[in-house]
Amino acid sequence: MDAGPHAVAAFLFILAGILLGAKLLGELAERIGQPAVLGELLAGVLLGPHALGLIPDGGAAAGVLTILAELGVLILLFEIGLETDLREMRKVGGSATMVAAVGVVLPFIGGYLYWQHIPHETGSPDTLHAASIFIGAALCATSVGITARVLSDLARLGSVEGRIIIGAAVLDDILGLVILTVVSGLAAGGQVSPMLTAKIFAVAVGFLVVAIAVGGWVAPRVFRSVARMKVQDAVPVMALAICFALAALADQAGSALIMGAFAAGVILARTDQFHAIAERVRPVGALLTPIFFVSVGSALDIHLLDPTRPGGTELLLVALGLTLLAIFGKVAAGFSVPWARFRRLAVGVGMVPRGEVGLIFADIGRRSGLLTNDAFSIVLLMVMGTTFVAPPLLKLLFRDVAPAPAPVERA
Amino acid sequence: MDAGPHAVAAFLFILAGILLGAKLLGELAERIGQPAVLGELLAGVLLGPHALGLIPDGGAAAGVLTILAELGVLILLFEIGLETDLREMRKVGGSATMVAAVGVVLPFIGGYLYWQHIPHETGSPDTLHAASIFIGAALCATSVGITARVLSDLARLGSVEGRIIIGAAVLDDILGLVILTVVSGLAAGGQVSPMLTAKIFAVAVGFLVVAIAVGGWVAPRVFRSVARMKVQDAVPVMALAICFALAALADQAGSALIMGAFAAGVILARTDQFHAIAERVRPVGALLTPIFFVSVGSALDIHLLDPTRPGGTELLLVALGLTLLAIFGKVAAGFSVPWARFRRLAVGVGMVPRGEVGLIFADIGRRSGLLTNDAFSIVLLMVMGTTFVAPPLLKLLFRDVAPAPAPVERA
Repeated sequence: MDAGPHAVAAFLFILAGILLGAKLLGELAERIGQPAVLGELLAGVLLGPHALGLIPDGGAAAGVLTILAELGVLILLFEIGLETDLREMRKVGGSATMVAAVGVVLPFIGGYLYWQHIPHETGSPDTLHAASIFIGAALCATSVGITARVLSDLARLGSVEGRIIIGAAVLDDILGLVILTVVSGLAAGGQVSPMLTAKIFAVAVGFLVVAIAVGGWVAPRVFRSVARMKVQDAVPVMALAICFALAALADQAGSALIMGAFAAGVILARTDQFHAIAERVRPVGALLTPIFFVSVGSALDIHLLDPTRPGGTELLLVALGLTLLAIFGKVAAGFSVPWARFRRLAVGVGMVPRGEVGLIFADIGRRSGLLTNDAFSIVLLMVMGTTFVAPPLLKLLFRDVAPAPAPVERA
Repeated sequence: MDAGPHAVAAFLFILAGILLGAKLLGELAERIGQPAVLGELLAGVLLGPHALGLIPDGGAAAGVLTILAELGVLILLFEIGLETDLREMRKVGGSATMVAAVGVVLPFIGGYLYWQHIPHETGSPDTLHAASIFIGAALCATSVGITARVLSDLARLGSVEGRIIIGAAVLDDILGLVILTVVSGLAAGGQVSPMLTAKIFAVAVGFLVVAIAVGGWVAPRVFRSVARMKVQDAVPVMALAICFALAALADQAGSALIMGAFAAGVILARTDQFHAIAERVRPVGALLTPIFFVSVGSALDIHLLDPTRPGGTELLLVALGLTLLAIFGKVAAGFSVPWARFRRLAVGVGMVPRGEVGLIFADIGRRSGLLTNDAFSIVLLMVMGTTFVAPPLLKLLFRDVAPAPAPVERA
């Protein structure tokens, strides 16, 4: 970005507008009994390039916003990691694994078959197989951000249901990485060996295990020294530096950025400075996290929702079918653990939002030519549909779940 | 910036390195009795493109860093504004105006004459007049960030000396804007009318007066409503939105970004939510402000300090002379108010650091061809010299000044 003051001023207007819009529409959402994040998503739609146009579609300002949004989601996952009690997580490990596995396999198969059997006006039949795989893949990965934010606002992150959802969503992200690689290989026109697939999976899981094991031993010792530093704000700034470094390291290791941030949170939850970190990082997250949700919302082109444009009705109907499939696949996953006691519908609905990962898949498909623009729009509508439908349902379903905020006192 | 995860990961590594370096060298500085900001500047030198190279010289990552650094300095000025009591400022208004005026005129004349009379190997004699004006201009503007940060760390922002320095630095910035316009006109090869100069001055002063008058009336009323909002973190996020919006507005009005941020702080200091804002904005500033100081430090090419390179000794000597002139001009300004009682040396030294504004002038001169690369390097060395010399001197000189932190309780 041009470092001149006018370019910075233009960016500051956008930033101020995003923050103002997020808070005003977040307030409106809360006033009508909906979660604030729904208002932030709507603020993104309104301010986005397809409506009021405050948020640009590309260029330097959009690039900076992407980074700020990314920092926002990293800090959100870091905070979720901070609130995650591994021993409590382990208790729901079996259920979470089952929910994740069923919630990936069912939507994938459903999406594949759906795309094979609906009537197609566009798209070559040669690429129908590959396109169907893309559609199936886009249905797989849960966007942990939306649900975590709603549960955090409702103080239900620490409930059994909340822990199963977070655990399953983390596993989902690992599976999403594997699928991303397979799908990228397809887009490049190549074949992907089962060996490579297994390797990616092992690396992603291995990174999480090693980082938490090593970091969990090192961090409490390091932070006892950091707490003795004379320079101001050493503890929270060092904590964020570790969050960013582990996120980058996770990417280098072939895992995902948000996995590293989550691991950093889990690690620092074991330090004596846990409280100071959580308290001082919160205001930073409060500033940056809404930028992420507004950015997600800004991707929706509201003109797609216009049934009067040519082919608009058909596109909306196909998108509606895919959205229902996406919802059904994850809700069914909630009912896939007959041996454990928890609110199955609440867990299933918690897995429904598809976010940035689904969009990334669809974008790779479009750029490789395997997905038509219409197919991409349908995936986009499915992602937005699941994202918008989940928060109000979650609020309703978690009404009866006992409030169990994440433990703030630990041994 | 490319939105792909690898580009983001590369940026996160840089960010983590900057934060880690800032805190470690800040700690080192404090341990040897120096202000932390000195360590942050040094961290910038070490991590910068001319040494370890973690911080890139250009490209997308550098652009994003520029924005984060800019947000950091805006939040710093916003916090200084929050701590500024206008009635207390008015009491030192006469002294501050005198210090600012003398501190701009003396260095400008000194710099102009110095450049006219030192022996020049490079640079055309035709452009000597214009080049001398550039050198004089680069000596004018105080970098309020460095001194404010040191005084804030020492809890001396509210002292008479602290208030004179902040007041004079704000006036300095207004004068700097006028000079910037004149100098830019020169660089474009044109003439600048006294009328235009007067207009720029009036707009900059007018913006500050109108913004504080109108905002000071509106803000307490608006924030009473904001405080009643149900959505989380509305008060601090709205406060930052106003900070960014006023900064952008200041730029649009022909004033400087940091003036708008300062005005926003002064305005919000009058709200009942003053405490909540100050407390919640602090952690955000703690994260972003070091990025600014590290960025400033990263501009120094340490190879310029090598006397063994060809022409190195001469360049260093000329730079040393200019730095002494820069120091003397501002210190003399501290002694320019015979009728008032305050520690004149402390005020003078507080005005010494030249920062980004001097660099902007020098950069315009270099790009227009009026300043040679050597002349630019000399200005850069002067800026860095004044920036590095002031913090330890300030710490020493303010030792005897009664600690008077900015008032946190108001009527």
